[in-house]
Amino acid sequence: MNENISMAVIKRLPKYHRYLRELLKNDVNRISSKELSNIIGFTASQIRQDLNNFGGFGQQGYGYDVSNLFDEINTILGLDETYDTVIIGAGNLGHALANYSCFNNFGYNLKGIFEISPRLIGMQISNVEVYDIDLMESFIEENDIDIAIICTNINSAQKITNRLEKTKVKAIWNFAPVDVVTKTDIEVQNVHLIDNLLTLTYFIKDK
Amino acid sequence: MNENISMAVIKRLPKYHRYLRELLKNDVNRISSKELSNIIGFTASQIRQDLNNFGGFGQQGYGYDVSNLFDEINTILGLDETYDTVIIGAGNLGHALANYSCFNNFGYNLKGIFEISPRLIGMQISNVEVYDIDLMESFIEENDIDIAIICTNINSAQKITNRLEKTKVKAIWNFAPVDVVTKTDIEVQNVHLIDNLLTLTYFIKDK
Repeated sequence: MNENISMAVIKRLPKYHRYLRELLKNDVNRISSKELSNIIGFTASQIRQDLNNFGGFGQQGYGYDVSNLFDEINTILGLDETYDTVIIGAGNLGHALANYSCFNNFGYNLKGIFEISPRLIGMQISNVEVYDIDLMESFIEENDIDIAIICTNINSAQKITNRLEKTKVKAIWNFAPVDVVTKTDIEVQNVHLIDNLLTLTYFIKDK
Repeated sequence: MNENISMAVIKRLPKYHRYLRELLKNDVNRISSKELSNIIGFTASQIRQDLNNFGGFGQQGYGYDVSNLFDEINTILGLDETYDTVIIGAGNLGHALANYSCFNNFGYNLKGIFEISPRLIGMQISNVEVYDIDLMESFIEENDIDIAIICTNINSAQKITNRLEKTKVKAIWNFAPVDVVTKTDIEVQNVHLIDNLLTLTYFIKDK
């Protein structure tokens, strides 16, 4: 496997992963770059170029072996392992993500939810307990948590990030509408829900 | 303005929009492609190429006029207009989106929320009323709604889409974890929250 896959390709991998998963579910065992192009929306040449990064699975006149290709992308994305997660903030978004069935399908295990409001502490959401935020650091250490999902309000997100920096957490997935930054090598993804609404507006502005 | 901007460029515009907005807030009036590259993470040459699509605002030795550039991108994205929206599904995610302050900042006006559960109908969320889902179509027509935001469960999303196809709604922003499809020219954005978690996993898999 080529270890120097570009960021642009990596960002496209989840989409390949998603569509190949569907094909497997529907018992499609092989597919040409042209057919894949029709369903996934990238050009066939883009697809051949992208998938070349993982060795030459495509064969002239045969196409790609869907199962092999899926396994390879699954491994590249690290989804052959499982990840323990916590959610910080048990408000509506924290609730929604705790209930989001996709997570379990992909090997993400939600271990705990942390909250400052006494009204919510002690609740169960999707069979996961809501703990006092003061216990966050010790819980992360004791349970070897990999990923912290921030669902707090805008004012708390960076403060929580500063606290997470001092733990062994490997990644932060931030849904608060502010970019959090770290000084350590924790991986951070700031989610911008609004960005993809803005793209939508582009297409309807003159309608 | 060049009307033939590629899809790849359009997808990057919300990010330019977001960073330029921050610069304006901080009273930064001009910026070079190099400085913009440092904060936004695209290469300087990518930035020059992207922004060339909207005419030559960048000047040698001066850089870009932040305010002009922001206004131009704002207009291209259609954000000099306002859009009326409804949310379908008043569960946790519908709640979270209704409370999401960003929307109002960008000129999206939430006019109504629609729900099947009698327990939720009649509630107010962020001063917006939750109506019976049976009233959806007539409400959309009477209020000239532009965008419908689907926050239902996986089983209802396509059914709601089929109903929306018969209204004058211009765009669907779908958060249910299934791709909805339309046979009409309604613009659809299927949000895949999980995709960007998968990219995160790529970076931590070997840590």
